[in-house]
Amino acid sequence: MEKKITMDTIVNHCKTRGFVFPGSEIYDGFANTWDFGPIGVELKNNIKRAWWKRFVQEDKNTYGVDAAILMNPHVWEASGHVSSFSDPQMDCKQCKQRFRADNLIEAHSKGTVVPDKMTNEEMEQYIADNKIKCPHCGGFDWTKIRNFNLMFATSRGTIEDASAKVYLRPETCQGEYVNFLNVQRTMRAKVPFAIAQIGKSFRNEITPGNFLFRTVEFEQMELQKFCHEKDSMNIYADYKARALKFIEDLGLAADHLRYHDHDKLAHYAKAACDIQYLFPIGWQELNGIHHRGTWDLSRHQEFSGKNMIYTDPFTNEKFLPNVIEYSIGADRLTLAIMCEAYDEEQLENDTRIVMHLHPALAPYKVAILPLQKNLSEKANEVFATLSKQFMCTYDEAGSIGKRYRRQDEIGTPFCVTIDFDSLEDNTVTIRDRDTMEQIRLPIDQVAEYVEKRIKFN
Amino acid sequence: MEKKITMDTIVNHCKTRGFVFPGSEIYDGFANTWDFGPIGVELKNNIKRAWWKRFVQEDKNTYGVDAAILMNPHVWEASGHVSSFSDPQMDCKQCKQRFRADNLIEAHSKGTVVPDKMTNEEMEQYIADNKIKCPHCGGFDWTKIRNFNLMFATSRGTIEDASAKVYLRPETCQGEYVNFLNVQRTMRAKVPFAIAQIGKSFRNEITPGNFLFRTVEFEQMELQKFCHEKDSMNIYADYKARALKFIEDLGLAADHLRYHDHDKLAHYAKAACDIQYLFPIGWQELNGIHHRGTWDLSRHQEFSGKNMIYTDPFTNEKFLPNVIEYSIGADRLTLAIMCEAYDEEQLENDTRIVMHLHPALAPYKVAILPLQKNLSEKANEVFATLSKQFMCTYDEAGSIGKRYRRQDEIGTPFCVTIDFDSLEDNTVTIRDRDTMEQIRLPIDQVAEYVEKRIKFN
Repeated sequence: MEKKITMDTIVNHCKTRGFVFPGSEIYDGFANTWDFGPIGVELKNNIKRAWWKRFVQEDKNTYGVDAAILMNPHVWEASGHVSSFSDPQMDCKQCKQRFRADNLIEAHSKGTVVPDKMTNEEMEQYIADNKIKCPHCGGFDWTKIRNFNLMFATSRGTIEDASAKVYLRPETCQGEYVNFLNVQRTMRAKVPFAIAQIGKSFRNEITPGNFLFRTVEFEQMELQKFCHEKDSMNIYADYKARALKFIEDLGLAADHLRYHDHDKLAHYAKAACDIQYLFPIGWQELNGIHHRGTWDLSRHQEFSGKNMIYTDPFTNEKFLPNVIEYSIGADRLTLAIMCEAYDEEQLENDTRIVMHLHPALAPYKVAILPLQKNLSEKANEVFATLSKQFMCTYDEAGSIGKRYRRQDEIGTPFCVTIDFDSLEDNTVTIRDRDTMEQIRLPIDQVAEYVEKRIKFN
Repeated sequence: MEKKITMDTIVNHCKTRGFVFPGSEIYDGFANTWDFGPIGVELKNNIKRAWWKRFVQEDKNTYGVDAAILMNPHVWEASGHVSSFSDPQMDCKQCKQRFRADNLIEAHSKGTVVPDKMTNEEMEQYIADNKIKCPHCGGFDWTKIRNFNLMFATSRGTIEDASAKVYLRPETCQGEYVNFLNVQRTMRAKVPFAIAQIGKSFRNEITPGNFLFRTVEFEQMELQKFCHEKDSMNIYADYKARALKFIEDLGLAADHLRYHDHDKLAHYAKAACDIQYLFPIGWQELNGIHHRGTWDLSRHQEFSGKNMIYTDPFTNEKFLPNVIEYSIGADRLTLAIMCEAYDEEQLENDTRIVMHLHPALAPYKVAILPLQKNLSEKANEVFATLSKQFMCTYDEAGSIGKRYRRQDEIGTPFCVTIDFDSLEDNTVTIRDRDTMEQIRLPIDQVAEYVEKRIKFN
């Protein structure tokens, strides 16, 4: 069941094939930031489009928004992030390294102790009692625990006083909550309806890592469904099913996916569930579905003083809607899809690296390959026509076998070869990435052939 | 030539029709941030897609990237932003309001004095000599000028010392420069080639304003073409032409557009030009094309210590590429397109508000309108089919005339009406937004009919 690839293999493939580069690499990088290269940006954009198509475009009752990253600071008071979005951290006085106390306890107890339920004092006591040492230097000389807020803070305007303090949003969903009234009114939306958003969030975490799995800056794809309490558990179950179907449809294998229902819930939550994927680093959360009750709207109602009560137009019942949240990280999903698609196939005399990406996600749909350089005029014509419709690439360097391999490595589903016959009879060879089979087609039928095979439905 | 609409008309239309809402509105907003609503997010995404299609997809020698917003701080030393990306500001001691000294001088001299060439001392002297008063309270009691850096600063990690200081990028292009080597290598790219990016930038400006025209957080669409000096002026001219053609093709009228060549150039620049659009606030910059010489790569070469010399594979010549930059603001272009498209049409007994958006940009391509509620089953079937292919909307409330108007107001190019004949013979009526003409079509021909008419080529 588990694929025998390591994260290093994926990272290396990404760097050398133009998927993902370390951020600010020429300056020796910048911890846990990554830049999507020419191949990666197409893959990620295609994933975002597939999500938007499935959850916004095809859903009559879902409305998109794109809210600003910088929000009024009161938003983060209402959401609770100012007071309690923090990690308990302590320093090793010996080597000056900083650690999360809860992580130290979890690692030491091998998961048998749940530090989330402990106070800082209890954690300090546990660490002292169990003589948990510094993982870096082996010392045992800890500072007290301090709670470090995970929001990046900055100042708006020209005066750096506390009143001008603003935050980079640590989650996108507040953009939906604060626009609940705007969207409901302008779209004349009837509950249940959802507001969806794709956008960047930022978390100033101490120990992110594992390539795209956890980064300080990341992109979320998520929606908040506003509903009556009586419908809420059905809607929750519905999104659990739809979330799983979506990632299976994108190509993640069913036996690499599992539900993980939460035992431990936030005080306001009625149910919560992750879908986990079997990454090279093990089973890890890929997306979450949460029943958040009336928490979010009630908090914003309280802090903003705006009435968020919805009146049902049929029954006249007045109520504060419940919220079902479905959220998935675009970067993390991109990573999962790359891990799933990556394959080292044993051929007769050879190994080929191939990315079996869903054709809808493939960065390039078509590679145009003139068999010889003096066919480039014809090949350029084909490129000019097909690139009106699809992302295409053009390659005239090296043997045709080598060029096929290059396309396999970045997941291009179709290679179109232009040869001397193409000049005579306007036909080309199309090679399929997965089967490596080739067929002959008239040039003017290529677009339709490709179009049919790259749909995401 | 000038359309008689005001910015207020556009802002109001945007708020009431779901294009754009003030950011964090329920908290009385957050100065100069805006949230794109359900209609606006589709419009803006379509504009971004059109740009990417034209300048990346259809151009064999352009490669996309999506770089992190948070970059290694050395990037901003190399770019010069740490030392000199600042505004000269002074406070009125009487009313405590803050102003840009250069703006005060420009306004007072009605543009006859160019403060950019003055030192802070010269500006202070000019303001004293001309007794320029506070525009807010009329007082004449200024502080000295202070240079205020326009980058938003934040801290990475858990220690708030200077070494951990990082910035929100004030421009996206550095993401291309620092990835010049990565892209060139992994794509085996040959100069001239371009790297393109769409992404957010942030500027902590004191006086932004005019709706989407100038915001503290904005999205850029831009590319950097790396080329040999001998080709650079041709490439510069080429992008001047392509940039204009692009916005004309999107529907901006030729007589609302003009080139504005810069007299005053940065010390490293060889040529620079804006394209201006006639906004309701007058002629203003819409996009820029800049010949930046070797400045950018030479600075990054110097600060990073990485060799950025390119070797021409044919001539073996070694050189540091010149850069031609073409940059356009996605938000600003969205604003221009809305201003251009907005119309109040005098009909016989009525005025209709209509957004004459290019169909490729229209938020919804098709509105599905059952003539009566008991036709909703059929109408829902049509929605389910068409929404696989296009952004569609569904409306069954109110008279059909009222529903047509609603779609006109958000620029939906096609309204499909389901009536009782539709149940019998599977045909529907399609109404054209601009001509208001209606034709009858079999349901299964609607998709193809629409598809043909919404292309951006």
